Formats: sequence, structure tokens, C-alpha cells
Amino acid sequence: MSKAYELSQKLEKLHINNMYNSDFYWTWDKTDEELDAVFTVADALRDLRERNKSTRVFDSGLGISIFRDNSTRTRFSFASACNLLGLEVQDLDEKTSQIAHGETVRETANMVSFMADVIGIRDDMFIGEGHKYQKTFMDAVTEGNRDGILEQKPTHVNLQCDVDHPTQAMADMLHIIHEFGGVENLKGKKIAMTWAYSPSYGKPLSVPQGVIGLMTRFGMDVVLAHPEGYEVMPEVEEIARKNAEATGGSFSKCNDMAEAFADADIVYPKSWAPFAAMEKRTKLYQEGDQAGIKELEKELLAQNAQHKDWACTEEMMKKTKDGEALYLHCLPADITGLSCEEGEVDEAVFNKYLVPLYKEASFKPYIIAAMIMLAKVKDPVAALQAMDGADKRKLF
Amino acid sequence: MSKAYELSQKLEKLHINNMYNSDFYWTWDKTDEELDAVFTVADALRDLRERNKSTRVFDSGLGISIFRDNSTRTRFSFASACNLLGLEVQDLDEKTSQIAHGETVRETANMVSFMADVIGIRDDMFIGEGHKYQKTFMDAVTEGNRDGILEQKPTHVNLQCDVDHPTQAMADMLHIIHEFGGVENLKGKKIAMTWAYSPSYGKPLSVPQGVIGLMTRFGMDVVLAHPEGYEVMPEVEEIARKNAEATGGSFSKCNDMAEAFADADIVYPKSWAPFAAMEKRTKLYQEGDQAGIKELEKELLAQNAQHKDWACTEEMMKKTKDGEALYLHCLPADITGLSCEEGEVDEAVFNKYLVPLYKEASFKPYIIAAMIMLAKVKDPVAALQAMDGADKRKLF
Amino acid sequence: MSKAYELSQKLEKLHINNMYNSDFYWTWDKTDEELDAVFTVADALRDLRERNKSTRVFDSGLGISIFRDNSTRTRFSFASACNLLGLEVQDLDEKTSQIAHGETVRETANMVSFMADVIGIRDDMFIGEGHKYQKTFMDAVTEGNRDGILEQKPTHVNLQCDVDHPTQAMADMLHIIHEFGGVENLKGKKIAMTWAYSPSYGKPLSVPQGVIGLMTRFGMDVVLAHPEGYEVMPEVEEIARKNAEATGGSFSKCNDMAEAFADADIVYPKSWAPFAAMEKRTKLYQEGDQAGIKELEKELLAQNAQHKDWACTEEMMKKTKDGEALYLHCLPADITGLSCEEGEVDEAVFNKYLVPLYKEASFKPYIIAAMIMLAKVKDPVAALQAMDGADKRKLF
Repeated sequence: MSKAYELSQKLEKLHINNMYNSDFYWTWDKTDEELDAVFTVADALRDLRERNKSTRVFDSGLGISIFRDNSTRTRFSFASACNLLGLEVQDLDEKTSQIAHGETVRETANMVSFMADVIGIRDDMFIGEGHKYQKTFMDAVTEGNRDGILEQKPTHVNLQCDVDHPTQAMADMLHIIHEFGGVENLKGKKIAMTWAYSPSYGKPLSVPQGVIGLMTRFGMDVVLAHPEGYEVMPEVEEIARKNAEATGGSFSKCNDMAEAFADADIVYPKSWAPFAAMEKRTKLYQEGDQAGIKELEKELLAQNAQHKDWACTEEMMKKTKDGEALYLHCLPADITGLSCEEGEVDEAVFNKYLVPLYKEASFKPYIIAAMIMLAKVKDPVAALQAMDGADKRKLF
Repeated sequence: MSKAYELSQKLEKLHINNMYNSDFYWTWDKTDEELDAVFTVADALRDLRERNKSTRVFDSGLGISIFRDNSTRTRFSFASACNLLGLEVQDLDEKTSQIAHGETVRETANMVSFMADVIGIRDDMFIGEGHKYQKTFMDAVTEGNRDGILEQKPTHVNLQCDVDHPTQAMADMLHIIHEFGGVENLKGKKIAMTWAYSPSYGKPLSVPQGVIGLMTRFGMDVVLAHPEGYEVMPEVEEIARKNAEATGGSFSKCNDMAEAFADADIVYPKSWAPFAAMEKRTKLYQEGDQAGIKELEKELLAQNAQHKDWACTEEMMKKTKDGEALYLHCLPADITGLSCEEGEVDEAVFNKYLVPLYKEASFKPYIIAAMIMLAKVKDPVAALQAMDGADKRKLF
Repeated sequence: MSKAYELSQKLEKLHINNMYNSDFYWTWDKTDEELDAVFTVADALRDLRERNKSTRVFDSGLGISIFRDNSTRTRFSFASACNLLGLEVQDLDEKTSQIAHGETVRETANMVSFMADVIGIRDDMFIGEGHKYQKTFMDAVTEGNRDGILEQKPTHVNLQCDVDHPTQAMADMLHIIHEFGGVENLKGKKIAMTWAYSPSYGKPLSVPQGVIGLMTRFGMDVVLAHPEGYEVMPEVEEIARKNAEATGGSFSKCNDMAEAFADADIVYPKSWAPFAAMEKRTKLYQEGDQAGIKELEKELLAQNAQHKDWACTEEMMKKTKDGEALYLHCLPADITGLSCEEGEVDEAVFNKYLVPLYKEASFKPYIIAAMIMLAKVKDPVAALQAMDGADKRKLF
């Protein structure tokens, strides 16, 4: 029996009826079994692809992507996931589009979705804005479908908002599961999600938030560490706390990188902007206060510069469990001596973990494809088994 | 018997032999039966899609799009239509292309068409230029095919030129047909194509021209209304007049919005530029006279501003048949109080017709797909029946 | 028996085992039989397409393109080739991508290749850089595959580097083969690859290099002619010399266009930059010396202007064999009186050869598709025969 077939049998036992026709905004909207289903389908699709089996559940169809911020990894992951399932990507480039001044999101959403099966949106720049935009967009197409404008409701995959970055956190998690040989081996493992210095400022909070919101669901000891002033959204911390309680793990915070790294099994050192500053930036942006934004940037860079000691050095790595913690990053990293003078991580540490880091990234297309498949295919078990059994090759 | 099958039987009775391998420039190049065929195939494809049937008549192939003006709706409609039939869209972006200074359209046309099944061009900015470009392009690939350079002649779909906007007008018309329960119910209905004020200037004339050139073929009373100075191309008015004579309807003109709206069954209030000014702009553009163009823009805006009373207000709508005329727009509309201070339509009117407006737009992908299919597939009746009968699903 | 079937039988006899999973950088990396295989598969794919047979060897998959220079012909050729085989093109646009400052090519290469079957790169601007970039990129994905990051190693198609332009030269060659009725008729034919004046400067050397590196393998008398100072890379001249020796043809150089044209069967007059100047430009570019680059450009233009007599005039064409040599160009050409005042070729000459010129270009998509197929499909003979025998149509 193939691995894909075995996984389809596992999928059959999960309670995932609510996933059909649903959207994927935040991991904490989903039940444990639903998350398990995403991992399961991702692994099954990878097995099918490795065995040169066609994984097209779509004969035709469009995946619409909207990137309101530059992107390589997520852009290609989304394109790959769509292609894997048989969808063509059509990017809505807001620069060459005729989106009228004052045109509602409702109108744009319907106009680009006549044949859309999937909508993938990245909008992570402004606190309070990214998720709102995605929600408004999806409410519009849901109504459009109800009102007979659209034959179907496309499913939404959040490709990063101001709150969560679920395709990243899920890919990170699937990587951890594979590295540790199964989810059952994670209980009691310590993971340190820590801030790290970068010469740039203002990176989204959605990565650390996504990580603490998800990793606390597997019985691990999750530590969030950052300098004072770099708090993340309190709502997400609250979710992490509740998750930990429910699964017998823990969620704690500290302001000391070394403390967080001490005896950790997994470390995730990464720069992000301070929440309060991001809120202030959103306000200045809404007011169109360019001078204010520039002033704030200057402040942020100065504030950042006080914490150059938050770096993932070889010294720091030695503090982790046997000096051999699994190092994670969503990439691209700011690498001291390579991409900047002083950054998030030493080149020696980065290079040591190069292969696992790229493997971590390699799960993202499969995670996205699994999210799409579970939302669009009514009977994903049958679909996996049909693809497994069929003689249809991916490549002749 | 399915709706698609019934429609294929209707198609069988229409005389459409000339459509195979033809192009679609202007609706008035086509016979009544040919237009009927487009509507019929559009409805059939929609029925097939709604029933999750694969509608790929192409196993592979390219749809080349050239947008010489920004576009969202038409861009996504073309991409959707191509995808629906199995074609991948490849956009010729003249900015990142190596099109040499002085390179002939003939050369570009052949170079991008080696695998092209469809060419979709939008070129609507300059009177006397848009159609000419499309024609030159298609003459080149027709010769290329004759001379053995191209294995096939791609078909052309005019995605808006300076004269007609056939995919828009046909989508509008199919929407009307559905709203009124069939083409047989349109005789004697009054439709008002009227100018409306917009704070911008210089919108293409091809929408009102497309509408009067097409809507006069169904026995309706078509009224074209605009302030003095906003005449459309006299050749198209002549076509409208002849159409009306031939079908027992009427075509009339007036300079009073209220008169046009009086007792109308359908209203289409929309801004466009004055023809004479557009001709002048083309000349200035050809001479590279940037100062002259700026001066003209100022004049146009001032001229425009004298007609702010040409607005589709609630008051104005009350004059229509039972105050309930069907409101049409090609979108995006300039909405008073939403996208501008004073515009084409009141927000209350626009919102009342939101769902039908979006439905109107939803026909465009199907209209384009039908145009492609009728020009590329030798036996479209057989193709529809095969898709209807086959067990090939669009989505697993 | 179909032409495609016959060609598959020919292919069966060629020794091409090393092509599977290989890359295509330079034609001189390949054996004669391997080049023959590319021509054979290109012709077979064209025959299949002309007979409306599906040529999809891929059920899904991505072709990643990276154009570090503007492109129309090669961009559409690559897109066409990918589509012909069932791949979707995903372009890595370095402008809208989040490629971090200092991000390694290794990282980018892996991040965009998770589902990539083919990588097509054009990087022809700087001597010593283009090939290096392509090699670094492919080494990265080869390691990525070895390390379990990528399930497969994508194949590479060099879409033009600083050294060779193999898809162009191979398309040119296949055109010659067809025009002369077979490769067996080329022995002793004279081909003149000559420099020609263009008002622009700095065109890549990879076209003349590609031509002398390839055309010397078929027993022809290859003459490279240019004004002094316009030498090409000595390594490539050396390859041409060895090729000629091995095949009983000849490779010679001269500084006189008329001498090169004398009694030539084929002429390829085209502008290129002087090698030494290009090396200097690379250095200035690396030093970020914008002023130096501008100064160099001025020099180059002045140097260029001394050789306006290097033009493919009607007079010059009369010197060729019966005044009827086959005129080649990779397009776009600088045409005297059409695209510039004085350029590479007279309008009368260009127009006389318009149809063969466009045919020449039409081979490129098939050459690229053949390169992909031979590198990705383990048994290309079986694949061709299966496509030939199957009832799967390209278009219904």
C-alpha cells in the first residue's frame, strides 16, 4: 500500500466536514483534526508527486493572487500549489489594473472572481488592515455566489495578513513534525520564538504570532522572547495561552534571548516590528502623514539598534539542547557578514542549517495545495485514492 | 435533456459556417444568426460549467492578450474565457518587451503568434488608431499563416477599440435577454443610452457606439442622448439607423437626459468624451504635442463641468417605466458620494442595482469564450454535445 | 507512416542517453547526435502539432523564466514551448520579488524551483557574468535535489548568455537545413557571419559566437567578418576552428564584408559590441562607475559610426552566390529607412527575405520544446510514438 493511500485512510477518520467550502484565515479558527487533515493531505500530495502521479483535481480553473507586498517565496509557493492541482494563476496587479478611485473591494472582488476557484491574498503591511481586507473581499464573493453572480464561492487562502501567516506556520510545523519523526514526539519539547536584530525595521508581526498561535497546540513548551517594546498582539498571546492549557504544554514570555535559547529543542530567531509602533504607522498611513512615517522609521531604527545583541550567534546556539537545536526561519534571513554587517543570524549558523531551512520552505506549496483541496473537493479521501490508483502520470 | 444539449440543438439550426476561422471586430460585421450563436454558446458553456462539466476544447494553446490601456474586468474576463476552454494566457506587456523602435506591427504579430490560438487586443485610446492596429495585427498573422510561418491563423477578439466594444455590448445584451425572459420580449422596449457627467474626461466612445450598434438589432426603441458636442461617430449612428429600420425598431437622438429616460425600460447612463475632441487629441498625440494635449484636457474638463446635471439620480430614475427601468453600466461607474463628489450615478441608484450590475458583468467571460469557440472549433455543435455527454469533470 | 513516426524511428538510432536530466548551456557541450536529436524532436513536435495531435508530455508542471534583459521573441518562444508540452510559465520578475539584498542565487534558485520542471534564463548583458549566473543557479538546484529539498532537478535551457545563444543558433540551423533540403546538402556551402553597423551599440556577442560555434559542425565554410576591434571571444573562435577541422569544413576570419559575402550561400549580417569594450563595461558595472559607463558608450558609438559601410545593401547582396544567398537575422533588425536612418540592412533586402526570416524565428519554440523533452522524458521515442498514435487532439 502506498504512503498516499495510507494517508487517505487516516484522513477518512478525521472530522473535517466543515472544511468543505470554508476559508483559511487563521490556524486558531480550525480544529486540531482540521489542521491534521492539512498535514495529511500535504504529505499525500507530496508522495503522489514523488511517484509521478497526476495530482490534478481541477481540469481547468483559476487561482487569483493578490500581493499587496513584494513576494518571491509565497508567490512561487502559491503558483506551485495551484499548478499541482490543475489551476492557472492569474495575478491581480493593482498597478496595471483599472481599479477606479473609490472602487469598492466588493466590486473588484466580484469582477476578478467569475472563474476563480481560489483567492490567495497577501496583505501584511498595516495592523488592523490586512485581515480586514481579506475578510471584506471574501464576504463580497460569498454574497456574489449567494446572489447568483458567481457560480461558486472561491476558497480563500491567507498568504499572510497582519495577524497570522498560516501557510508559513503550517509549513514550519510540518517540517518540525518530519524532523522529530511525528507529532507524538513533540510533547515537552521546547521551542523558542525569539526576536532578533535586523538592520531593517517594520517586518510583519504575523510570523511570530502565527508561530505562537500554532505551536502551542502540540504540547510543546513555547517561549516568546523579545526586548521590551516588541510585544505582539495581546489577542494572539491570549490564544497561545489557551492553546497551551488545553494541550498540556506551556506558553511563557521573557525578555532575554539567552534564557529562551537555554536547552531549547527548536529556535526561531527573527526580527519584527514593535506592535505599538506598527499601530502608530497604520494611523499615520491612514492620515497620509508621510513626514510622520519617516520620523517613526527613524525612531524605530534607533530603537532597533539598541538590541544588536539579539543575534543567533554560534555562541547563542551552544546554549540550546546539546548545542544542536533545530534552527528555523521563514526566509530571507538577514545574515551577519553576508547580507548585512550585523543581522539576525551568523553566517556559520545559517550555513549549518541550510538544507533543513530550504526543506522547511519546501513544505509551503504542499500546505497551500492541501488547504485548497480540502476546501474545494467534497470528498478528498476519494480524490486521493483515485489519484493514487489511476495510471495518469504527471510526466510521460 | 440538459440545457446545454437543448442549446446545441438550437445552434445546429443557425447558419454560422462563416464564423469558423473568422475574427470578431464589430458586431455589425456579423449576421443576426451569428450573434444568436454567440449568445447560445455562451449560455451553453455556462450551463456546462454550472454542472461541473469540463469545457476544455483545447488540450493546450495560448491566448495572447495585448492591453494598450489599463484593464481589470476585461483582462480577467479574457483570462477566464481562455482558461474555461483550456488556453493559457500570455500577456504581451509592451513595457518589458524588446520591441525595437520602428519594429513593424507585422513583425511583432508573427513573433508572438507561433502557438497562439487567440489574440485579444484592447486599444481604445485614440480615434482612428485602435481598430487600425487590430486590423494590421490580424492581417499580419493571416499572411503569416498563408506563407507557412504560422501553422494556424489565431482568431481575434476585439477587447475594445476606438469604434466598438463588442464583448461588452454582447454581455450587456445577454444580460438584457435574461432579465426580460428572452429576445422575443424585447420588441418595442425603450432603451436610453445616455451621456452622464464624470469628473474625469476622455472615456472611450466605443461603449455607447457598441450599444447603439447592437441594441438596434432587436426591435427596441433606442434613444441616444447627450449634451451638444458629445456626438459619437456618424458612421456608427448610420449603422444604428439602418439596423432599426431593418428590425422594426427605432433609433432616435436627443439632447435631454430626462426625455431619454421618460418611460424607458432600460437606461445606460455613462460618460464619454466628445468625438471632435478625441479626434483633436489623436492629432496632438501623433504630433507629440504634450502641451496641446494638456490644454485640450483643460478645455474638456471645463466643457464637462457644464453638464453636471446629466446624472442618474433617484429623481431621474423615477421618470422611467414604473420608476423601475433596468440600470446598466459597463463598470467602474463614477458614483456620487462614493468614488467622487459628483458623478454618473447616485449611490442609492447604484446600490439598488448592484446585483444585476455584477450579473451583467458576469456574462463577459462566457461571451468571449463563445466567440473563441465559434471561430476555432469546426463543429461547435458536436463539441457542446461531447462535453455535455462526457464524464469529464471540471473539478473532481 | 506519419512524419513524426518516421522521425521517432530516426531518434531511436541516435545515442542520446546522456541527454536525460542534462542541461543545455552551449551547443559545443553536445555531441553531433545530441544536436541531431534536438532537430529531430523539433520537427516531430511540429508535425504532431500540424496534425492537431496533443503534444503534452506534462500533465502539470512549471517552466520558470528569468529574463534579466527585455525580450519578446525568446519570451514568447519559451512560453510557447512550455505550453506545447503542458507546462505553465511562471516568470520570476526580479522587480516585484522579495529578493533580499545579499540573498544568494542558491537561495532564490531553490525557493522558486519546488515544482519547476524547466528553468529558462536569459542573462546576456555582461561578459563573464551571464553563464556564471546560470551555472550557479543550476548548481544550486542540482544540490537541492541531491539534498532532498527538490523532488526533481529541473532542466535548464539557456535562453541567451554572454557566451552562446543556443536556442537561436539551433533555430537558425534548423531553418538552414529545411531551406537546403537536408543536412547532407550543406557540405561546402559558404556562410558569412558578418558584423553590420547599427546606430545602437553593445549588442550581445552571443549570437555571432553561437553561430560560429554551431555552423562549423556541418562541413560548411564559415567566415567570420568584422571591422578590427570587433573580435569575439577567442575561446569560441578556437571551438569553431576545431569543429571545422573535425567535419571537413573551414573556419576563417576577415575584416572585409564584401570578401565575406563573395559567393556566399548564406549571410548573417548583424551588429555586436566589441569584446574588449564589453569586458571593460562589465568591470565598470561591477565598480558601479556610471560615469565611466556613459563615457564608454560614447566611445563605442563613435567607433561604431566609423563602420557605417558595413551594411547589407542590395549591392552587397549581389556579391553572394547568384545574388541570392539566404539572408538570416535573429530579429529585430535595424533596417535602414524603416527603423533607423542607417542600419544593418536595406529595407529592400529585408523585405525580400521577410517570409524566410519569420520562418527562421518560427523554429525557436520547437527547438526549446525539443531541448526540454529530451532532458525530461526518459524515453522520448516512446513518447513521440504514443502521441502520434493516440487519439488525443490538441483542439476538439
